[in-house]
Amino acid sequence: MPVPDFRAIVFDAYGTLFDVHSVASLAEQLFPGRGEALSMLWRQKQLEYSWLRAMSRRYKPFRDITRDALIFSCERLAIALDETSLQRLMNQYSSLSAFPENLQTLRLLRQAGVPLGILSNGNREMIEVSVRSAGMTGLFDHILSSETVQTFKTQDPIYALAPEAFACRPEQILFVSSNGWDAIGARWYGFTSFWINRAGLPLDRLDAAPQHQGSLLSDILPLVLPASSQ
Amino acid sequence: MPVPDFRAIVFDAYGTLFDVHSVASLAEQLFPGRGEALSMLWRQKQLEYSWLRAMSRRYKPFRDITRDALIFSCERLAIALDETSLQRLMNQYSSLSAFPENLQTLRLLRQAGVPLGILSNGNREMIEVSVRSAGMTGLFDHILSSETVQTFKTQDPIYALAPEAFACRPEQILFVSSNGWDAIGARWYGFTSFWINRAGLPLDRLDAAPQHQGSLLSDILPLVLPASSQ
Repeated sequence: MPVPDFRAIVFDAYGTLFDVHSVASLAEQLFPGRGEALSMLWRQKQLEYSWLRAMSRRYKPFRDITRDALIFSCERLAIALDETSLQRLMNQYSSLSAFPENLQTLRLLRQAGVPLGILSNGNREMIEVSVRSAGMTGLFDHILSSETVQTFKTQDPIYALAPEAFACRPEQILFVSSNGWDAIGARWYGFTSFWINRAGLPLDRLDAAPQHQGSLLSDILPLVLPASSQ
Repeated sequence: MPVPDFRAIVFDAYGTLFDVHSVASLAEQLFPGRGEALSMLWRQKQLEYSWLRAMSRRYKPFRDITRDALIFSCERLAIALDETSLQRLMNQYSSLSAFPENLQTLRLLRQAGVPLGILSNGNREMIEVSVRSAGMTGLFDHILSSETVQTFKTQDPIYALAPEAFACRPEQILFVSSNGWDAIGARWYGFTSFWINRAGLPLDRLDAAPQHQGSLLSDILPLVLPASSQ
């Protein structure tokens, strides 16, 4: 296989770089037996609200959308959410850990001189707090946020931040996401797309497939680094 | 309350005019114990695919999206879907019934001379088959489909079909939907919006509320008709 000439590797944040599992754990701790249902609906509504707002040009910072989605999900599931529990759940987003293989993978890429970025629906402060919390300070050349363009994935303007920041063509960027819909959106946009399919899910049926697929972030290394440096 | 001067009443199709319950029933019959999980995921994916395609300008007819969503949902739930079961489930969309109060409500409005329309994500043939199947032939002045504009709700161009067809301003249209997100999208667009909240769900937290709410389609009558004609 020829080595592709990537000018940068750009990562999705939540679920890809940062493990949001601790959010579900806390939900289960606060509401025993309901944690999984709550965290699943919360995530679904967080995405749904971002898509509806993107379609109708009603941008609102992702942190606020995340809060709205949590409050709705508790109402929907008849879970009594007091202010303390709400704050504790929201604060989990400020102390996310990285998946075990992530830091080493990012450091190897950094050592090899590959420009790295984050492109996320999150607002800038949210992402920067997560970067610090996960010990990733200084690893990224660009942190690209929905805040700049006031819309969300999969709309073109947010993906377009990456080729603009790295001054290259979309296909020269390897875009890495653990969210299947995001990996497909990235492919639609024109990136070279890598789906980190951590959960072994089937691919969404949207008539497009990411060019690459793996189950861990480190699975991108053979594609990017010469064999000797891994 | 002053009687609003509506120039037309425009209805969403699936779940609002047409009862999709029979789809879930058949799913349960084909896959005992899995029917509810399948029909819920199928619906969720059908909407998700429509939103992602709308955002990324990748229109595909709603019938095909519905089929894609069914195939994905079965894969995701590890349900073996043979061609016969797939066809039977898809064919349910051609024989949907109306909710019990719908026909009478539509006839009363029609008798009172209120212009009526349908505005749906469905493709034209799909909607027309459902209209015939539910005994609603001849009740509507306009059947407005995503096919014309090649995008889906909640994007402006599909909602814009209604004021164009009825030659009036958006707020002069009473838009009726049982889907909370659609009722909110309609409000965002500028319609006067009526949410038929059949399941008694909480309203989605999107910083906008439909102006009116009820639990049956007939709940729109007091708003539109003089008391004597009901």
